[in-house]
Amino acid sequence: MTTLPPEPEPIPTPPPSSYQRVKAAYDRITEVDRPDVWITLRPLEDALVDAKAVDERLRAGADLPLAGTLVAVADVIDVAGLPTAGEDVCCVGATSVSRLTAAGAVVVGKTNCDPFGSDLEDTHSPYGAVSAALNTARVSGSAGSGAAVAVALGLVDLAVCVDDAGAGRVPASLNGIVGMRPTPGLVPKTGVVASRDSVALFARSLTLGQRALGLMTGPDGVDPLAHDWPADVRLGAGDRPRVAIPGSKTLTCLSLQSRSAFLGAVSALRASGAVVETVEVAALLSVGELIHDDGFLADRQRVAEAGMLALRMLSEYDALVLPTVADHPEVAEALSDPAGVAGRLERFTAFVNLLGLAAVTVPASPSDLGPYGVSVVVRPFDDQVAIDLAAVLTDEQADFPYPAPGADLVVFGAHLRGQPLNEQLVAAGARFTGPVQTGEGYRMLLLSTEPPQPGVVPVSGSGEHTMLSGERWRLSPAALGAFAAALPEPFVLGRIRLENGETPLAVLCDQAATATATELTRYQCWRAYLRFVSTAGPRDLGRPA
Amino acid sequence: MTTLPPEPEPIPTPPPSSYQRVKAAYDRITEVDRPDVWITLRPLEDALVDAKAVDERLRAGADLPLAGTLVAVADVIDVAGLPTAGEDVCCVGATSVSRLTAAGAVVVGKTNCDPFGSDLEDTHSPYGAVSAALNTARVSGSAGSGAAVAVALGLVDLAVCVDDAGAGRVPASLNGIVGMRPTPGLVPKTGVVASRDSVALFARSLTLGQRALGLMTGPDGVDPLAHDWPADVRLGAGDRPRVAIPGSKTLTCLSLQSRSAFLGAVSALRASGAVVETVEVAALLSVGELIHDDGFLADRQRVAEAGMLALRMLSEYDALVLPTVADHPEVAEALSDPAGVAGRLERFTAFVNLLGLAAVTVPASPSDLGPYGVSVVVRPFDDQVAIDLAAVLTDEQADFPYPAPGADLVVFGAHLRGQPLNEQLVAAGARFTGPVQTGEGYRMLLLSTEPPQPGVVPVSGSGEHTMLSGERWRLSPAALGAFAAALPEPFVLGRIRLENGETPLAVLCDQAATATATELTRYQCWRAYLRFVSTAGPRDLGRPA
Repeated sequence: MTTLPPEPEPIPTPPPSSYQRVKAAYDRITEVDRPDVWITLRPLEDALVDAKAVDERLRAGADLPLAGTLVAVADVIDVAGLPTAGEDVCCVGATSVSRLTAAGAVVVGKTNCDPFGSDLEDTHSPYGAVSAALNTARVSGSAGSGAAVAVALGLVDLAVCVDDAGAGRVPASLNGIVGMRPTPGLVPKTGVVASRDSVALFARSLTLGQRALGLMTGPDGVDPLAHDWPADVRLGAGDRPRVAIPGSKTLTCLSLQSRSAFLGAVSALRASGAVVETVEVAALLSVGELIHDDGFLADRQRVAEAGMLALRMLSEYDALVLPTVADHPEVAEALSDPAGVAGRLERFTAFVNLLGLAAVTVPASPSDLGPYGVSVVVRPFDDQVAIDLAAVLTDEQADFPYPAPGADLVVFGAHLRGQPLNEQLVAAGARFTGPVQTGEGYRMLLLSTEPPQPGVVPVSGSGEHTMLSGERWRLSPAALGAFAAALPEPFVLGRIRLENGETPLAVLCDQAATATATELTRYQCWRAYLRFVSTAGPRDLGRPA
Repeated sequence: MTTLPPEPEPIPTPPPSSYQRVKAAYDRITEVDRPDVWITLRPLEDALVDAKAVDERLRAGADLPLAGTLVAVADVIDVAGLPTAGEDVCCVGATSVSRLTAAGAVVVGKTNCDPFGSDLEDTHSPYGAVSAALNTARVSGSAGSGAAVAVALGLVDLAVCVDDAGAGRVPASLNGIVGMRPTPGLVPKTGVVASRDSVALFARSLTLGQRALGLMTGPDGVDPLAHDWPADVRLGAGDRPRVAIPGSKTLTCLSLQSRSAFLGAVSALRASGAVVETVEVAALLSVGELIHDDGFLADRQRVAEAGMLALRMLSEYDALVLPTVADHPEVAEALSDPAGVAGRLERFTAFVNLLGLAAVTVPASPSDLGPYGVSVVVRPFDDQVAIDLAAVLTDEQADFPYPAPGADLVVFGAHLRGQPLNEQLVAAGARFTGPVQTGEGYRMLLLSTEPPQPGVVPVSGSGEHTMLSGERWRLSPAALGAFAAALPEPFVLGRIRLENGETPLAVLCDQAATATATELTRYQCWRAYLRFVSTAGPRDLGRPA
């Protein structure tokens, strides 16, 4: 018998190089012919030089998670080698932009925006009004408008902007893309002019946006207000997040299309397992009215009080889900009644700025309704919770969770998903990161705990042992500490050896407690044992056929 | 042989009742004759009614940790039943005061202060100037002056005030008592009028002050800016804290007495084991000059930048130790040059307010130098670190650590004090809370780790076992989580049974790793074993005579 050589693997098509992507983008920029989007478009040659450098670094083996990604930057943010807001050319780019280019992104140009960052209808830029990506008779919304339209038209993949008065969310909603406002301070504002608030990001997908934002977070040693994730950060929304939504009275101001898009999103959240409840948001939304008040500091106490109420309400929920805009005003309207249109546009977004919350807006409309976004608003630092919920609406997997501090914990019994103690992990903001398989050498025994739990122990000496199935969860340092502090006898936290050689922390059991316990090792998995019990009945506990 | 009845125990003298203490205090108030201290002294009868109620609650078995403690309150803070700052009588007391009276303290009256809370020399109160407790020709310092003098003259044990521009520390220093400024927000400001800053406390001892402040911390559901301790709070200064002090150039402005007192305190810190280093503080102190600037908000960026520098400097140290005041101005000087005297008084304190830091000032002068305080300044939420360092200067034990979140961990080997891995606990802000003794039933074995460590395991079945000696440390949730996440094999975290029946978490060892290890159980204590090794030499490892 002769052995045939194995079939050759099909050669995968390589992804386009940065060079190819830049060339295609400039072709598309010419094709769509929207000069209102750009204040400074870089010469093609300059962008190609950068793109070639990325391609070469990639070939040399560099780890460039954003290689091939094209970026636009709102004109109020510094880009090395380009002017900012009509002033001199910058030598040093903003931290937020430099972190993207260091990861392989290429900047295409700087986009049109109101340099004062406060006109939400954005028909007042000295460089001309920017109309919406898909409907030039309608506004594109706010200081981030050029940036959002650049993403919406497929000219770039990402755009860095600021979120003053909702500028990082309203244009996303009006142009059918993803807009992300991280908790203020997570992304340093070094190199951002004329913003009192947070850096924000527009993205063509939530997954790409989070991958980029994850690289942008963390103090840079220059911005004094930048900070790290807190030690008790929540790392995920869990399987059954509690979501607050406004009541029907608040929704009466929505256009038919906007309301329909919003209610569709709520249905999708419910279908995904979220527990959705109606709350009164009028007082909360009215705080946003203070945003253009020049005497705003006199209202600090009112804002702080509303903030406490907001946090108290949000403390009972994982997120507040809102329409991003009530309707889509026409450019003509905005020119005749700018303040009225701005007020309408910021109704559902401005309170988020004043209260220092985080939010993500994602497209939520069936295509026939026009671009309407839905906003997921969360407490400061619950950014990952917002993204997990938004991912339900965009049908994406949140693949690149934020680089918040944490440690892995492997569980085998009542802490597994769907089991009685799983809520301990979820309530602590832990994130399920997948199933695991241990290496050989473990036993599982039935402990007489309430609820019943397995005790997992490494085998000492000879005797029955196997590979066990469990789940891996990621916990913040504080959540892991609280879990350890509450761990009852006979459980211990120790390292376990996985099939792949990793040795994460796991919930194990004191050997002494297993001396007289029933052996469940042959089931290899607590759920398999539970299935057996539910079939065979309690009398056969631990005695599989 | 007849058995004699046992000798009766001597009957202890009971502490004075609240009733007795109030009576004695009012006698002393009459005796010292300092009407400048009080704006509203409660009628004796009213105070006695409260005192009797405390005595009755005590007899009924109530837990009143401040029973018998007398309190004065600066006039800018509400006390139920008394007027505030010349306005109407309050129905509800400030949270800070109510929490003290709920714990058994009795309010004696409201003290004189500048109702605008900003005149550090405090010769401008509409109720007249307050001179120092021990020298009526000199100022008593700032908005808290009446309160500080009331404590300094022994009229009350505690006084609640505000710390605007150092008002909770300068008067303490000039009157020879303890002044405590917690991190802003830890004590709710509900019921405090005219303060932009933190509630503060004067106390006749650091221990009493901390016991009271510990009861005052925590959100009250009313003050929107009140908050809890963070999950990674540092719980202690450790045995060898790193302390920054200003260089000699900064000290040239000090009077001979003040400088002598300060240098004496530095010597005491060194003698206690602190590592003291000189740093440049000029830029830091100059931030304080912005405190009376009405356009101060325009300088927000400068303050934020100085704050970042301060935090960066403090991040290399556990605390910054400074003189509280440069000298002790006379009342006549303050009347002729109020701004100049205020500037001198706040030189070492005002930056703490602007940067949101915490500080404690304690008397640090030998009696012949007059009252000069030394300030321990720490990062936000490092309040316990400040108190531990201040306790060195007052020769007190910090007996009532703040009720910050945390959990106990028992260690037996290289994490013990003075052992090679102890620094892991200290660096994480853990607090040593005492030696512990386990119950019977444990073994200790020599592991082949580097550095050498003992493995502690509960005994399964028969075999050698004993009671082991270890140490108990308290860790914040985040510190415990980080410790667990970094725990190497073969260690595990599990519960241990102490002699007294408690079952705290402890660093134990996987049974399997001990199979071939040398038995050290008979030493009962890792230190005893180490002593044996150092005497007998490595050849005799594990074989005591």
